[in-house]
Amino acid sequence: MSFNSFGRVFRFTTWGESHGPALGVVVDGCPPGLALREGDIQTFLNKRKPGGSKFVTQRKEPDTVKILSGVFEDDRTDGPRTTGAPISLMIENVDQRSKDYSDIRDKYRPGHADITYDAKYGFRDYRGGGRSSARETAARVAAGAVAELALKEMLGPDFAIRACLVQMGEHKIDRNNFDWTEIDNNPFWCPDAGAAKVWETHLEAARKAGSSMGAVVEVVASGVPAGYGAPVYGKLDADLATAMMSINAAKGVEIGAGFEAAALSGEENADEIRIKNGSPHFLSNKAGGILGGISTGQDIVARFAVKPTSSILNPRRTINAQGEETEIVTKGRHDPCVGIRGVPVGAAMMALVLADHAMLHRAQCG
Amino acid sequence: MSFNSFGRVFRFTTWGESHGPALGVVVDGCPPGLALREGDIQTFLNKRKPGGSKFVTQRKEPDTVKILSGVFEDDRTDGPRTTGAPISLMIENVDQRSKDYSDIRDKYRPGHADITYDAKYGFRDYRGGGRSSARETAARVAAGAVAELALKEMLGPDFAIRACLVQMGEHKIDRNNFDWTEIDNNPFWCPDAGAAKVWETHLEAARKAGSSMGAVVEVVASGVPAGYGAPVYGKLDADLATAMMSINAAKGVEIGAGFEAAALSGEENADEIRIKNGSPHFLSNKAGGILGGISTGQDIVARFAVKPTSSILNPRRTINAQGEETEIVTKGRHDPCVGIRGVPVGAAMMALVLADHAMLHRAQCG
Amino acid sequence: MSFNSFGRVFRFTTWGESHGPALGVVVDGCPPGLALREGDIQTFLNKRKPGGSKFVTQRKEPDTVKILSGVFEDDRTDGPRTTGAPISLMIENVDQRSKDYSDIRDKYRPGHADITYDAKYGFRDYRGGGRSSARETAARVAAGAVAELALKEMLGPDFAIRACLVQMGEHKIDRNNFDWTEIDNNPFWCPDAGAAKVWETHLEAARKAGSSMGAVVEVVASGVPAGYGAPVYGKLDADLATAMMSINAAKGVEIGAGFEAAALSGEENADEIRIKNGSPHFLSNKAGGILGGISTGQDIVARFAVKPTSSILNPRRTINAQGEETEIVTKGRHDPCVGIRGVPVGAAMMALVLADHAMLHRAQCG
Amino acid sequence: MSFNSFGRVFRFTTWGESHGPALGVVVDGCPPGLALREGDIQTFLNKRKPGGSKFVTQRKEPDTVKILSGVFEDDRTDGPRTTGAPISLMIENVDQRSKDYSDIRDKYRPGHADITYDAKYGFRDYRGGGRSSARETAARVAAGAVAELALKEMLGPDFAIRACLVQMGEHKIDRNNFDWTEIDNNPFWCPDAGAAKVWETHLEAARKAGSSMGAVVEVVASGVPAGYGAPVYGKLDADLATAMMSINAAKGVEIGAGFEAAALSGEENADEIRIKNGSPHFLSNKAGGILGGISTGQDIVARFAVKPTSSILNPRRTINAQGEETEIVTKGRHDPCVGIRGVPVGAAMMALVLADHAMLHRAQCG
Repeated sequence: MSFNSFGRVFRFTTWGESHGPALGVVVDGCPPGLALREGDIQTFLNKRKPGGSKFVTQRKEPDTVKILSGVFEDDRTDGPRTTGAPISLMIENVDQRSKDYSDIRDKYRPGHADITYDAKYGFRDYRGGGRSSARETAARVAAGAVAELALKEMLGPDFAIRACLVQMGEHKIDRNNFDWTEIDNNPFWCPDAGAAKVWETHLEAARKAGSSMGAVVEVVASGVPAGYGAPVYGKLDADLATAMMSINAAKGVEIGAGFEAAALSGEENADEIRIKNGSPHFLSNKAGGILGGISTGQDIVARFAVKPTSSILNPRRTINAQGEETEIVTKGRHDPCVGIRGVPVGAAMMALVLADHAMLHRAQCG
Repeated sequence: MSFNSFGRVFRFTTWGESHGPALGVVVDGCPPGLALREGDIQTFLNKRKPGGSKFVTQRKEPDTVKILSGVFEDDRTDGPRTTGAPISLMIENVDQRSKDYSDIRDKYRPGHADITYDAKYGFRDYRGGGRSSARETAARVAAGAVAELALKEMLGPDFAIRACLVQMGEHKIDRNNFDWTEIDNNPFWCPDAGAAKVWETHLEAARKAGSSMGAVVEVVASGVPAGYGAPVYGKLDADLATAMMSINAAKGVEIGAGFEAAALSGEENADEIRIKNGSPHFLSNKAGGILGGISTGQDIVARFAVKPTSSILNPRRTINAQGEETEIVTKGRHDPCVGIRGVPVGAAMMALVLADHAMLHRAQCG
Repeated sequence: MSFNSFGRVFRFTTWGESHGPALGVVVDGCPPGLALREGDIQTFLNKRKPGGSKFVTQRKEPDTVKILSGVFEDDRTDGPRTTGAPISLMIENVDQRSKDYSDIRDKYRPGHADITYDAKYGFRDYRGGGRSSARETAARVAAGAVAELALKEMLGPDFAIRACLVQMGEHKIDRNNFDWTEIDNNPFWCPDAGAAKVWETHLEAARKAGSSMGAVVEVVASGVPAGYGAPVYGKLDADLATAMMSINAAKGVEIGAGFEAAALSGEENADEIRIKNGSPHFLSNKAGGILGGISTGQDIVARFAVKPTSSILNPRRTINAQGEETEIVTKGRHDPCVGIRGVPVGAAMMALVLADHAMLHRAQCG
Repeated sequence: MSFNSFGRVFRFTTWGESHGPALGVVVDGCPPGLALREGDIQTFLNKRKPGGSKFVTQRKEPDTVKILSGVFEDDRTDGPRTTGAPISLMIENVDQRSKDYSDIRDKYRPGHADITYDAKYGFRDYRGGGRSSARETAARVAAGAVAELALKEMLGPDFAIRACLVQMGEHKIDRNNFDWTEIDNNPFWCPDAGAAKVWETHLEAARKAGSSMGAVVEVVASGVPAGYGAPVYGKLDADLATAMMSINAAKGVEIGAGFEAAALSGEENADEIRIKNGSPHFLSNKAGGILGGISTGQDIVARFAVKPTSSILNPRRTINAQGEETEIVTKGRHDPCVGIRGVPVGAAMMALVLADHAMLHRAQCG
């Protein structure tokens, strides 16, 4: 069943709770001979690390990753390289502050998994959401770093994965202002400098009001060759859908034109094809780089909607484990917009799905 | 890798091409002792059968299902019952008309999988889309029928799956007019009688113009107990996402409030909880019946966007397998809105995911 | 869970009962472009077909295979070739004679799965063993044919799989007389002409006495490159173990020296290595071509023990489904030594495991 | 592909090398609410711990296990209990002494995986065998402890798994002297006091001569209900076969009468059935408690052959990575008979397979 594993060939298994001693991931199936140092992974982890701005949780976690297996340095290998054995990565939890959560021991926070975990398992690790906490995504990002490095080795310098926020609350970016270089200039990974300013105002207001905002994350992979993916239940888009929907707080996933495709005519939607430099060249990318579940060679474009953080300071009506009606205010250190930290997580999931399909493709098609 | 299989415990594998002799599905893991006749499955298949109205393909396929294994009738079993062995279901193709497709042998239809199949496999079964044809969904519906019957046996009469079209082109239904009993009164599975009329006008115009329209399908499961699903990569919503996105022409999936959740405040989005008749009662269902990947006991609500049919009569620019620029007109008998026949397919995928999770739940939690 | 599937990349799913209308297999993940005709598969099936001599069941089954999907003939493809889509193969049951089995409806045949199927599923398809019948192995052999053809395409003419019987009852072959060309000269696939004569006498006596004999099957794959397999739960030998043990009536599996390795010294057991023609050359093959779960480049050697057919004419004490003590005589048309027909089945399982690992290897290691 | 995972529902993934910082296992799918302390697991680990007698490796490893996730202690739960989340267990390596292995950096030890790892992955972690080291089995034993505790909770006090050595070198135990209480009275887990003395003499001689001996391990599970297992590729015996064959140095696996079944007549082999205390009672157990891949309710009996340790002090001919012929003497601290420490490992694998099947059974059959 593998509830905590993902992938077929490039396969990873995460473990750990928000307030346990550590969390981690085991990556199985990675190609051998890949150069891999802890610092390579750390670079990715630092992008989703909490505490970076006032718009993300104030929990202080260095998220320092340790490689416990699967890598070996030999004088013949020019630095540590993957051996083909499972790569075990561990991140210790440092700033848990379990006391913050004592009042949610019995009360179910609306919008949280508290009530469903109790319904399923009979009890739950209530400290910081336990296994349902977004801290689990640190393990995904660590695995995704390995996946992205493996893809770069396989696909070369044209391959890249980029991600950004394209909507916060009801405020979308202006596509005409889209500029990838902007995403490092604001605390939102926003590719539209103008939108970033609008978002800042609104998110600051929401934060001060003890409220929260939703968002939409966009992830784009460039340099992916045509032919990755498979019919019918191994489709690249279907795998991206489950990958993105498995991210905490995700409520929707779309590829290319996505839900807007429903409103297009057949003529508008079908991307016409010409020849350019001797290769197929699509005149548009409504398909998001995927047809019939298989990559076209265009950019792979996926988006996912992130609901507003459920942990808010305004009191909400709820019940407790004893079946009594009550109210709850969720204190603690929460992200006013979890979508922001969802950006590197979405990029990681894209890398993990693509690494898997790159290897699946050569398995079947040589 | 199981490219053509789906599910963990209640697992099915489909096979067959649009213009081969037959298509089918093997259902593995079905509980034993379930009453199952061909007629039970046929009822489901008839809902997606082509040729039912002018708004679906005019191909005439009776889609008659045969049970080839996994069911046994004994004088002690009161009719045929599943034995626990794999259930093999076969549907013969009758009305293939391969000649209709001879002109697409070398040309890539924009929006179709022609170009990606060639890129991946080196050649393709070009007759009617081969494996990428929506005819494959007949096999899913047959498997979904078994899943729904198994769920009814497990969950009792309160359990039901219903599906409808909530948007065609840019025209959405009016939620105030939503009435499940309306879906059998129009050829669109539309729950809003007024919208159905609007759609009819637009779709008729599109059909006559040789164009096509997209749509959004909504699937609702009622009577699902709290506790189905699992963290973190076995989430019920993540499984629904891959299930729905694997349907031909699907470009987006959402659960509950879905993409609209991005525009809500934390207060609006988190469904408050009260006690009603001694049980938890949610005051809204933005979550679509799933929190932390696990069912809450509310209705499970999923939607998916279906792009407009790519096979259209208006000429489109494309290339051929020899890398030359050309144009294509896709004749043949196509659905002007494939979303319509996606409705029973969506219901089938919901049943298949839920049957799997019902069994997974009792595996882990007894 | 995939109770009726096997393999990771080259994956197959079998279905069908001894006395149902048909049985079959779906092969998923086969490389595209492989030349495949029904006749290619039939050649393999004919080797395990019943009715070939008085030493196998007298049931008359032509075992004619039909390809229902996954293969396409185009004027560009020089005969039918696999498309990369699932290959559905069906074999119709012709000579069922259900009446033969009416007396085992309630009585449990000792050594058979009757009692365990009832214990697990509550009832069973008692006609000819239902799903537990060795007829299921016809589907494996059909899948194995595809696997062997795929391997030949990948590995070239040096690759071969051969299988034989090396023991019948307590009578082993003389290894000094081992000659692969002998296996077609007797009805036992015996590579030792002298042993074949001894076996004939004993098996004829057993058959006339209404008894049965066990056997040991040996399967050898040559021309397999070093490097197939993987630690730790994907070992080539561990996969062969489950493959062989899953064959009806198998009670033991061994690789290379097998159980005899327990009696060897470390010096005797460890195959020494020299260089020959510029390549590693092992001076012995106690390892059976596998070290650490990975192929060495030597012959892969596996053996499995087959128990004597449980269906015998001599009365045995048993109970019935009502919990009453009784006796049973199993009439019907049974193999006096099922090990004989286990030979092509063992060869098929070897091919299926190797095809899977050939593809897994290129997935991870390029 | 999951090369380093095992199991379907109760699923575990191991990681770590002999001379890395640590090794560990992630157990996924464990039922919630199971009482689990580190000490419970430690008891099992201590049985396979090195350094216990002169007949096992002198490497000093405390093998102290830490639980990093999946367990939560609440004042309502009466000690730490499993939460249903993945259980991460880690064992730090303490006594690595990498220098011992510097001379095997380039030379391939006959009988070891050195040559095959290099062939597959291009290079290898040569320190102590890296991933192919038997130290990996510590992780299995830790996972097996959790499995056995889960089974005890599900099946009650009648359930037990016991394991012993029944053969060392060519010396088998006398079945008439079989006494489970003897296994703790000698350093070999030998159930026959007389055989233990014989073995001691032989093994001491082999050890002093720098040689090694093989062995056969027997594992017996009692109190397993009828009905566990499944046709055709989910057979309980087929799963035990792969489980046992995946253990380092295993070369053969058998169930019940095993290879001896080949020499039995049909009458001798088929276990007759009577009624005893209102339940089915088998008059013998040639089947080893499994018919048609499904448990009969009798003792489950599995055996596996372990080859003699390949690391021996006597020089053997081999080649090096440069393709030159040479000789090798394997120093280091090795078990003269690795079969001894294979006993708790075999018991662990039995527990892991049974826990998986217990859960699979309730998934399908309720």
